[in-house]
Amino acid sequence: MPRIDAGRFRADFEALAAIGRTADGGVHRPTFGDAHLAARAWFLDRAAAAGLETHVDTAGNHSAILASGSGEAPRILLGSHLDSVPNGGRYDGALGVVAALEVLRAIHDADLNLPCTLEAIDFTDEEGTLVGLLGSRALTGALTRDTLMAPRGGRDALLAGLARVGLTETGLADARRDPGTIAGYLELHIEQGPVLEREDVDIGAVSSIVGSRSLGVIFRGKAGHAGTTPMDVRRDAGLAAATFIVGVHETVVRDFPNCVATVGRVTLEPGAFNVIAGAAHVALEFRSADTSELDALERALIVRAREAETLGVAVEIDAVGRWEPAPLDISVRTAIERVAGALGLSAIELTSGAGHDAQALARVAPSGMIFVPSVAGVSHQPAEFTAWDDCLNGANVLLGATLDLAGTPAG
Amino acid sequence: MPRIDAGRFRADFEALAAIGRTADGGVHRPTFGDAHLAARAWFLDRAAAAGLETHVDTAGNHSAILASGSGEAPRILLGSHLDSVPNGGRYDGALGVVAALEVLRAIHDADLNLPCTLEAIDFTDEEGTLVGLLGSRALTGALTRDTLMAPRGGRDALLAGLARVGLTETGLADARRDPGTIAGYLELHIEQGPVLEREDVDIGAVSSIVGSRSLGVIFRGKAGHAGTTPMDVRRDAGLAAATFIVGVHETVVRDFPNCVATVGRVTLEPGAFNVIAGAAHVALEFRSADTSELDALERALIVRAREAETLGVAVEIDAVGRWEPAPLDISVRTAIERVAGALGLSAIELTSGAGHDAQALARVAPSGMIFVPSVAGVSHQPAEFTAWDDCLNGANVLLGATLDLAGTPAG
Repeated sequence: MPRIDAGRFRADFEALAAIGRTADGGVHRPTFGDAHLAARAWFLDRAAAAGLETHVDTAGNHSAILASGSGEAPRILLGSHLDSVPNGGRYDGALGVVAALEVLRAIHDADLNLPCTLEAIDFTDEEGTLVGLLGSRALTGALTRDTLMAPRGGRDALLAGLARVGLTETGLADARRDPGTIAGYLELHIEQGPVLEREDVDIGAVSSIVGSRSLGVIFRGKAGHAGTTPMDVRRDAGLAAATFIVGVHETVVRDFPNCVATVGRVTLEPGAFNVIAGAAHVALEFRSADTSELDALERALIVRAREAETLGVAVEIDAVGRWEPAPLDISVRTAIERVAGALGLSAIELTSGAGHDAQALARVAPSGMIFVPSVAGVSHQPAEFTAWDDCLNGANVLLGATLDLAGTPAG
Repeated sequence: MPRIDAGRFRADFEALAAIGRTADGGVHRPTFGDAHLAARAWFLDRAAAAGLETHVDTAGNHSAILASGSGEAPRILLGSHLDSVPNGGRYDGALGVVAALEVLRAIHDADLNLPCTLEAIDFTDEEGTLVGLLGSRALTGALTRDTLMAPRGGRDALLAGLARVGLTETGLADARRDPGTIAGYLELHIEQGPVLEREDVDIGAVSSIVGSRSLGVIFRGKAGHAGTTPMDVRRDAGLAAATFIVGVHETVVRDFPNCVATVGRVTLEPGAFNVIAGAAHVALEFRSADTSELDALERALIVRAREAETLGVAVEIDAVGRWEPAPLDISVRTAIERVAGALGLSAIELTSGAGHDAQALARVAPSGMIFVPSVAGVSHQPAEFTAWDDCLNGANVLLGATLDLAGTPAG
């Protein structure tokens, strides 16, 4: 059976990492910036040089295609993305795209005739410079008008970005594919968390991509003079916010061990050394792989917020974001674990705490994700690192799982 | 014995409150703004109209003077300030200046010949638009070069403000008076806190003006992905800051019942819903009337901050402000209580949680402060309010205490 060409794979990975490289060894490739466009052009060049077809759809998704010899065959997509967060790392997204390209080349070189067409795809704007999962949601028909009218990066930036590369909102809608043409989806990605490293395991087979909810919690007390207002008559919104933050942590750790919750931003008003805060704005986000668990956690956290009322502080809660959990296909997951085992690699199932294009694809086709260890769990930073052997292992599992999904199991 | 002319006192108070009046009934008279300068000019006009001498010193302090008939007599100062915080209330400072003017007029009208010269003084920039206690510190020789080089409102604003009214830094130094010429200092002020109202008492005799210390506390953890970083490996600077804020409140309420402590500002970095905070900047201020208690409280709060180290979060602490407590003169305080009693008014001793010009004067002369009740303790806001009878009572106590201090006790 075919194997990844380790030398070619690594050379291409390094060549890609040089595009948009930053002084500290990371990459800066926000969506539709010069470095991002250069990386996408490089990808098509490498595909064409390998004798693969190339294609760019009306959502800007860039593809290398290895057509089945069997005519109008169903298509297996192997994807990830070439955009990065600002000053991000070299592995996030890029590893999956280069590995997908290498899988097609390996199968092409081995002259295998699969019953499926293979498509290595670089999705547009996964990281959310403009929208987030823009290309994969367009392809799966999950882009709503509401999302496009109020995108994460702002409406003006979206329109300017689309115009820069000759895309249109009509084109985004037209990029939707008939789900019946997609036989499956696979994505190799770094874990971005510490679990595989801590467990000393080679491969993660992702069981589910967690859902997340974001709440804006506002505590309204009473501003007052920090010198003349005795402690026992204060209605201190800052104290209420702090008590809530401690309570969030306590509740999650004690009662929801499979969840995470984070307060990443707090603003006190008026915000001075010598004025008791009259209002506190708290940004709360929490995640779980299970919708009913998200519901229960949300209820529990709202109870914690309302404890502020005992301090004479009112509470307002606004839902500002919501992603549903995306369970991944059990048979694909099983195939990933089987392939890993056949390659002599250890594997465990785990959830993905971060969002990925796979969560859009999972809505329309059997989908799976392969994780490889992130050293110290570092992500979205120049220090993001995965040992090269792990990258290579991941690419070989991606190759084996692709053959398995195509009905040509490695053996 | 003389009494305050209630009608004249009230008419002047109302006339002054109209200068810089805001739509919501407060006043906006920041230092050296048009309204502040108009209020000062009004004060000199009213003094001259009453047959009093007027004087403006080289720190811009504005005075009305009732000279003793006994030649070069020691001088009793009766002061407060006509500047306000932005969009402040009508009583803070203004009440004390109008009452001081009225005391001089009442004694002048009664044709009493005191062994002391009386000076009603409107100190420059008490509230700190530029420096804080600028005039009273200049007069008592307590303005340091460090203070003038890094004033609260910024060096540029100070220089521009001085230039606007024709003052100079040399003049600020020259405004210092020989302490031997000052026989005492008295100030009537609203309490700015809820104690007198809560205790249903007419008059507060201030025993001490609290000292305060401000610390900038920085917690340094590790920024991380809010989805992929398990709770048990986080080094969350935001959680450390919240735990500290709760701890500060707990420590003060439990162990330091005579103190207050406030966290009025918190900033998390990078400050996003989906990123665990890598750093948290906390603005901490605490106050006590007793230096050794401030020392003990500071030690206890630093212990609370360092608890963050158990979360893997480092702690940096910077001292960014320090005012020493200013005990007021016991004999003056006793005189205030005696005069209140003679007028049939209830009185208690209390500390002032806010700073006042009296804390500068207390360094060089026997000084006292008379507090009258603030409804609901509201201060530095348009809703600041003191019942008129309480204002009048305060002015009569100021008059009686002035006579007492001059050696001409009311009888």
